Amino acid sequence: MAKFIVIGERISVTAPSINKAFAERDPEPILTRAKQQLDAGATYLDVNIGPAEKDGVDVMKWAVQLLQGEFDNVPLALDTANMAAIEAGISVYNRAKGKPIVNSADAAGRIGYIDLAGANDAICIALCNGEGIAKDNDERMTYLQTLLERGMMAGMEAEDIWFDPLFLVTKGMQDKQMDILEFIKMISDSGLNSTGGLSNNSNGMPKHIRPIMDSAMVAMAMMQGMTSAIVNPNDLRLMETIKSCDVIKNNTLYADSYLEL
Amino acid sequence: MAKFIVIGERISVTAPSINKAFAERDPEPILTRAKQQLDAGATYLDVNIGPAEKDGVDVMKWAVQLLQGEFDNVPLALDTANMAAIEAGISVYNRAKGKPIVNSADAAGRIGYIDLAGANDAICIALCNGEGIAKDNDERMTYLQTLLERGMMAGMEAEDIWFDPLFLVTKGMQDKQMDILEFIKMISDSGLNSTGGLSNNSNGMPKHIRPIMDSAMVAMAMMQGMTSAIVNPNDLRLMETIKSCDVIKNNTLYADSYLEL
Repeated sequence: MAKFIVIGERISVTAPSINKAFAERDPEPILTRAKQQLDAGATYLDVNIGPAEKDGVDVMKWAVQLLQGEFDNVPLALDTANMAAIEAGISVYNRAKGKPIVNSADAAGRIGYIDLAGANDAICIALCNGEGIAKDNDERMTYLQTLLERGMMAGMEAEDIWFDPLFLVTKGMQDKQMDILEFIKMISDSGLNSTGGLSNNSNGMPKHIRPIMDSAMVAMAMMQGMTSAIVNPNDLRLMETIKSCDVIKNNTLYADSYLEL
Repeated sequence: MAKFIVIGERISVTAPSINKAFAERDPEPILTRAKQQLDAGATYLDVNIGPAEKDGVDVMKWAVQLLQGEFDNVPLALDTANMAAIEAGISVYNRAKGKPIVNSADAAGRIGYIDLAGANDAICIALCNGEGIAKDNDERMTYLQTLLERGMMAGMEAEDIWFDPLFLVTKGMQDKQMDILEFIKMISDSGLNSTGGLSNNSNGMPKHIRPIMDSAMVAMAMMQGMTSAIVNPNDLRLMETIKSCDVIKNNTLYADSYLEL
């Protein structure tokens, strides 16, 4: 089995300092966060430039070249509602360390992102969701099939579609958490890859609880066959848990120093 | 679903201070460890008096009455190779908070412990093991069936046999860890209860790693339907993980204070 893939989520306009850095084309805050995440064990870095309706094309090109130039062609997930910006990012992207990820398609208004990924030989994160939150795993599976078929039509390999079950907030939807975990197993049993914004489960919880809850969730998700997650790699407890589950799953060989690797 | 049951493992002759306390009938070290474990969230306390060939009957009676007298009839697991000592412990045991647990039967030399549990309306931990370590899950399942049939013959309810997959040391048997986890799911899918000395997986690892590895393992085991474990409840990270998995599984209701409960 392959090692779990960590996509670092911290280069995002949701952080005011990063939002400002994109607007001003200021490399420093972006490179700092990139280095922190890579040092902590991230494989991919997500580059979330937001809606970026106006200057998305320029911003994404700049960010891709900045990050890949500084960090030996680090593989990136390109994350924006502006499809032209994603295409622009891919146009300057170096594939030496892995295909770009298009973040993200869904089975409703954003299904065109699958076509975009197919046309550009990219990986695509595919949210198993339509309009509103799926009511059960039958509905999630319907969306998965829609997305998978669309990807096949666009010439994609199935392994390049990373299905996202959409993690739900425990505070409010506690009784749905096991559905999400069962759905991850359904994805895995189908031989498909999965990912997702795992920390959404702990949204709204006190700050000291979130790493604890997220770590429990990632271990359970990895048991169910999840192959990747979009997380904060600078959450030490979370990364320790991911590395330990990789040992238990025999994805990486145990050594007394495995947490430092 | 019922909350995960934590059996505290710290009252054991493997700790020199406890060994001495049993020999001298000195309550203090035993009561101190009992309180620590109960305060941390243990439901059952294991009372491991060792082989106790000479004075096992007296020691176990003394320990049962000491602990149940001090801690409001706390439920106990009676753990010794001396079967007469287990029967003696049960003879003075108060069931107000739960049946006694007989720790433990296996499918070889210790199969008589199942009969003992059946004759005394006790719960029995049943190690799915014969002579030597089972080579695969088919063999484990054969042992499980032997133990289950024996329990039925002894008049037990299936729910009172807690099957133990026998956790294996990761250092040396890393490639067997997923077998153990798959076997836990086989137990769970059969509608049966499970338990085990989970920290055996991290045996021989550096001390700072063990809580990290054990926490990853318990979350994966709980995902697979494990219903109980014999652990150190004073391992804070482990207990935080168990409580978090109970929330994710909807076994306990989330509150911002759930880690303190």
